[in-house]
Amino acid sequence: MIAGIIGASGYAGAELVRLLAGHPEIEKLILSSVSFKGGRIEDIYPNFLGAVTGELVKAEDVIAGSDVVFSALPHAVGEPYAAACMERKIHFIDLSADFRFDDDEEVYSAWYGKTYKFPELHKKSIYGLPELNRKKIKEIASKEAVVIGNPGCYPTGPSIAVFPAIEKGLWDKNSSQPIIIDSASGTSGGGREPSRSFHYSECADSCAPYKVACHRHSPEIAHNFSVMAKRTGVPSPQVIFTPHLVPMIRGIISTIYIPLSGEWRVTPNKNPAVLPPSKEIEEKTAEIQRLYTDFYKDEPFVRIMPANVYPSTNRVRHSNYCDISVNIDINGSTLIVITAIDNMIKGAAGQAVQNMNILFGFDEKTGLSAIPMLF
Amino acid sequence: MIAGIIGASGYAGAELVRLLAGHPEIEKLILSSVSFKGGRIEDIYPNFLGAVTGELVKAEDVIAGSDVVFSALPHAVGEPYAAACMERKIHFIDLSADFRFDDDEEVYSAWYGKTYKFPELHKKSIYGLPELNRKKIKEIASKEAVVIGNPGCYPTGPSIAVFPAIEKGLWDKNSSQPIIIDSASGTSGGGREPSRSFHYSECADSCAPYKVACHRHSPEIAHNFSVMAKRTGVPSPQVIFTPHLVPMIRGIISTIYIPLSGEWRVTPNKNPAVLPPSKEIEEKTAEIQRLYTDFYKDEPFVRIMPANVYPSTNRVRHSNYCDISVNIDINGSTLIVITAIDNMIKGAAGQAVQNMNILFGFDEKTGLSAIPMLF
Amino acid sequence: MIAGIIGASGYAGAELVRLLAGHPEIEKLILSSVSFKGGRIEDIYPNFLGAVTGELVKAEDVIAGSDVVFSALPHAVGEPYAAACMERKIHFIDLSADFRFDDDEEVYSAWYGKTYKFPELHKKSIYGLPELNRKKIKEIASKEAVVIGNPGCYPTGPSIAVFPAIEKGLWDKNSSQPIIIDSASGTSGGGREPSRSFHYSECADSCAPYKVACHRHSPEIAHNFSVMAKRTGVPSPQVIFTPHLVPMIRGIISTIYIPLSGEWRVTPNKNPAVLPPSKEIEEKTAEIQRLYTDFYKDEPFVRIMPANVYPSTNRVRHSNYCDISVNIDINGSTLIVITAIDNMIKGAAGQAVQNMNILFGFDEKTGLSAIPMLF
Amino acid sequence: MIAGIIGASGYAGAELVRLLAGHPEIEKLILSSVSFKGGRIEDIYPNFLGAVTGELVKAEDVIAGSDVVFSALPHAVGEPYAAACMERKIHFIDLSADFRFDDDEEVYSAWYGKTYKFPELHKKSIYGLPELNRKKIKEIASKEAVVIGNPGCYPTGPSIAVFPAIEKGLWDKNSSQPIIIDSASGTSGGGREPSRSFHYSECADSCAPYKVACHRHSPEIAHNFSVMAKRTGVPSPQVIFTPHLVPMIRGIISTIYIPLSGEWRVTPNKNPAVLPPSKEIEEKTAEIQRLYTDFYKDEPFVRIMPANVYPSTNRVRHSNYCDISVNIDINGSTLIVITAIDNMIKGAAGQAVQNMNILFGFDEKTGLSAIPMLF
Repeated sequence: MIAGIIGASGYAGAELVRLLAGHPEIEKLILSSVSFKGGRIEDIYPNFLGAVTGELVKAEDVIAGSDVVFSALPHAVGEPYAAACMERKIHFIDLSADFRFDDDEEVYSAWYGKTYKFPELHKKSIYGLPELNRKKIKEIASKEAVVIGNPGCYPTGPSIAVFPAIEKGLWDKNSSQPIIIDSASGTSGGGREPSRSFHYSECADSCAPYKVACHRHSPEIAHNFSVMAKRTGVPSPQVIFTPHLVPMIRGIISTIYIPLSGEWRVTPNKNPAVLPPSKEIEEKTAEIQRLYTDFYKDEPFVRIMPANVYPSTNRVRHSNYCDISVNIDINGSTLIVITAIDNMIKGAAGQAVQNMNILFGFDEKTGLSAIPMLF
Repeated sequence: MIAGIIGASGYAGAELVRLLAGHPEIEKLILSSVSFKGGRIEDIYPNFLGAVTGELVKAEDVIAGSDVVFSALPHAVGEPYAAACMERKIHFIDLSADFRFDDDEEVYSAWYGKTYKFPELHKKSIYGLPELNRKKIKEIASKEAVVIGNPGCYPTGPSIAVFPAIEKGLWDKNSSQPIIIDSASGTSGGGREPSRSFHYSECADSCAPYKVACHRHSPEIAHNFSVMAKRTGVPSPQVIFTPHLVPMIRGIISTIYIPLSGEWRVTPNKNPAVLPPSKEIEEKTAEIQRLYTDFYKDEPFVRIMPANVYPSTNRVRHSNYCDISVNIDINGSTLIVITAIDNMIKGAAGQAVQNMNILFGFDEKTGLSAIPMLF
Repeated sequence: MIAGIIGASGYAGAELVRLLAGHPEIEKLILSSVSFKGGRIEDIYPNFLGAVTGELVKAEDVIAGSDVVFSALPHAVGEPYAAACMERKIHFIDLSADFRFDDDEEVYSAWYGKTYKFPELHKKSIYGLPELNRKKIKEIASKEAVVIGNPGCYPTGPSIAVFPAIEKGLWDKNSSQPIIIDSASGTSGGGREPSRSFHYSECADSCAPYKVACHRHSPEIAHNFSVMAKRTGVPSPQVIFTPHLVPMIRGIISTIYIPLSGEWRVTPNKNPAVLPPSKEIEEKTAEIQRLYTDFYKDEPFVRIMPANVYPSTNRVRHSNYCDISVNIDINGSTLIVITAIDNMIKGAAGQAVQNMNILFGFDEKTGLSAIPMLF
Repeated sequence: MIAGIIGASGYAGAELVRLLAGHPEIEKLILSSVSFKGGRIEDIYPNFLGAVTGELVKAEDVIAGSDVVFSALPHAVGEPYAAACMERKIHFIDLSADFRFDDDEEVYSAWYGKTYKFPELHKKSIYGLPELNRKKIKEIASKEAVVIGNPGCYPTGPSIAVFPAIEKGLWDKNSSQPIIIDSASGTSGGGREPSRSFHYSECADSCAPYKVACHRHSPEIAHNFSVMAKRTGVPSPQVIFTPHLVPMIRGIISTIYIPLSGEWRVTPNKNPAVLPPSKEIEEKTAEIQRLYTDFYKDEPFVRIMPANVYPSTNRVRHSNYCDISVNIDINGSTLIVITAIDNMIKGAAGQAVQNMNILFGFDEKTGLSAIPMLF
């Protein structure tokens, strides 16, 4: 099969190049880039020397010659290419935010400052989180070409983490308390263009929050929770999302605080809890851990950590895994779910390849089976 | 004045050496260490070569020859030295957890596995957080020798951050929701002894949580909030505390989620909030920022960040500052306060020196006025 | 084929596990570890969860059940296992220093403090640097079981870098000047055991030399150069080797200064050269670059950089490549060759797998064809 | 005294601000910046909040109001300001390369692409390396206003390292071998402007050389060695200089290889040396270490390391020290001197302040006595 990548010269695009160049079902790549047209991918990324080579052509040539098209363009520029692919009846997997809100144009516009140019595309596009939408993706893809809105990096882990809590009634739907998501990301999420935020001397050996209470992934996360809530027949949770920049290249760790429903709460041994966790908390935690393990037992890329093993970004580096741990807080009232992903893989390019595997009926691990690194 | 340090060879001890060696009021240091007795501090820490020199003697010699004694020993070994100093009527500033719980031996024992050997000392010891206890410290120190329980690194920032929220009624005392503290620390907090957790290849370029729902600083934070609550006449808040290890040497950033009381809440423009923050949220945030600025206007080491400037650990590196920012979450229901400190300075040695300055009536900035680094 | 790894629980051993678990020709692994006997590899290295699983048995069981055996044990303990494998007539690939000096026991003893227990093994063992000894390895392996002494991490790059200079007469054999090798390595080379040198707070954000003028890889490098010199019929070069520790997890960069022979020297435009490099230097450099490209054109894992592109450790991360650049110094008298490898792959486990591929007649890139990362 | 800084908004300028704001003899600062005119220094560098405040005015205002002027402007723009200061008869300390070559305009032009606009200034300017030119600086400054050409970051350590070797005849003046300087620097040397080279994802966790055989500090180093050679009456050494970028924020470590003269050489125990260093090498090394210690005994900022302690950049962080170690290579023919400095302090701003102290007859440690950090 021939895979095309529009916008192959940015970090997400280049990561896609790397994954697809090693994908058994892909025999050839067609790559485009506006900034580097006429150049070669291995000149921009010398790590590819001797291993991958590719000329950067025009986006139109990518669409004309591919069996599936990925777009790693910035927001608000990819719709025409999506439309062209639907015309050609080939699947289009978009890594921007353009197709992540289904037809909720109000929210998309409010945060990204643009409107839908091809509204009808958004009625049929599918949010590409396999753990949530696999069935829908398979179903529609069997009948027609689809536009996949590949999830944002930050929303991926929390969405996978919260899904069981909503569907299995762990989350207290009566609570006025928002679900709080506190995340930390490495620098590659900022992309290839140099900027002060990612200037080594400015961010190395240091940690800081950014876009507090106003990050664009906030509505995407809330939107996903709403979809889960609707399926389960419960109200939509409120969401608080706080991102932090951490001095590492790859990885996102998200610590999620979910108020527990009555049946799952544990009475603390003191109030406020000032003594170490009780046996009851340990047992309830183990129960929840079993529930999560069972909920995700068929998911190829979700690993529920054993007791007392916490997710760590280095253990999912360069892999498509989402690692998850569960704990109950010391007061017995809150479920603490922690996730770790590689922002470039499960948070972007790996997830896109996973979606392609689903679209074409390949084993989902095809091209994504690299064994995670030691470090 | 002669200052003595027991346990000078660990990281906190050595940081004390550095600060006190440069302190205008300290003419001489007497240092002790069990592991390195007979050695010299500049041989353990060659950064001191040519700048600081000191022989490591016995703890008894430190107590005998000093005007004030600092102890940087591990937990549960320092009480006898505290007792000896009270005998000699000299102040004793302890960096371990031994004197952080006042006379609440139950909590201390439950987490640290030891009991008080000198219970009466704990009735009179004072928790050394100046922003909370300055008046009490000055008062008692004017009459007699005191034992100061220097705060833990993690509890310092959150305690300073939450104090105004409790005292000024921003915190919703009727809420069943705990105050959530999500923190990230650098590696120096782990101390000088090599271990797998801080082995470079294991923790570099990676982020992970640890001791989720069971960290020993949890009860200390809850205890501090109780003290503030009691002063204000409100119930004690529940606390959730989650630490993470971040690949940086120094620094702790804490993101604190405090449910807002009715008068401070803002109605979101949508529920759940999926649109960018409203003008009302911006204005209320500015009001809270002014409240915090006013609350801490006389504090020499608390800096409230201007709007849209977030705390960052590199900006407080090697300084005794605690930087703070305030935001209201997008749903209008939660106050997000973020703090950054240097775990070795305001989180340990710097705070100890600040306490010494208070005890002896020096200007609080004495020996702590180094201008924070660029990076 | 069944591959066995003795000492699978250290870093080099675990890296071998990862590479062999993904090797198309290896259907099963048998792993042993003294420290963790009875445990499982995925419990020591949770990155392997869900991807690789293996019980840690006794070394004897590894030898009894495998078709090829790798040893990642410390120095001076592996010889009996090598002997046992020669008994069973199966190849033995040793990652320690024990078989790197052929039969020069004097040098080995002087640096490693042990003597050969099985001297006859060392008469027939082969130094496993494919770029130097491929022919010999193939030849002997076709007839009998061999012991391969896998090269040390530091010696690998410089040996590959200097080989063409000696063989093609670039090196001035009449010079009294040593070949100077200035290297910088990441921390994983130090292994899995925590120690002060690799304690995060001690080595992060800092650079320092170590074992100056006395590192054990020094004689190994000199020994390799002697082998090359003997083949070419020139005297053996003197070697100076200085290692440095750099705050990165993987990688070794080596900068090598080789005095140029008369025919290759360029007369500087000023003496001492204080003006920018002349056109003549640029042209001669290009000539040498072509010579190196040609010399290594059939080597699957040596990449000669294009002009003005320098090796960088991040571009060979997780790959078996050795990247090389060549320059002539500004005075026209010295060839500066710079190499970059991943110390765990081409500097250890990857090279061992490459040797296995040669021993068994597989394409040398089998199991080593992962496309290098962006970062 | 009032100190003025032209170009205060770059890294070197801001580091000067920090040092001078804490300098006992400086009562006020006047700061200018073209990019940020009208702004305030604490808005560009929030670490200064509450500690330092300053409006950014025009360069002319700095010159008009100061008693001493520092210029941290880029190369080739500061001469007019130097001229203006000489007019006003106030000292001018320049951190650019403009005044580092005395009147050797040919070399300056060849590398920096500009010519001297005020040639006569360069006849009288002094290269501001105190260890080399203190006497000259004091002498001339006592009579008239001087222009100080503050040394480049890379040349500082090697110049201090090689000076004793040339002056005391350790260096083999008959050798055809260049003095080789292999250096590694942190990222702050690259300045405040974001660029691909210092984009976190591009340089973190990685090491690479750059500007091999063509770095602009090369001629400056050679020029310094010539000055030393001339004073000693020996020929000028040839210089090879290779810089590397290391993932740390501050620091430069330089490993320098100096061919030993006949009287200092040691006959190796084998040739090439493949056995560990001999007793003779150890003894000769100790002799050289005593020579260096004696040579620099009166220098306030040069620390010769004890035996077996190597310089490390973290031990000179934020300090004006230059740490030095000496070794003889295993072949007995080469003196290996290693230096570590903080590139922003002894490599730029600290050295400038040290020069100011000399110019005004202050104790040289004034404002530079911060005790080096643990980490």
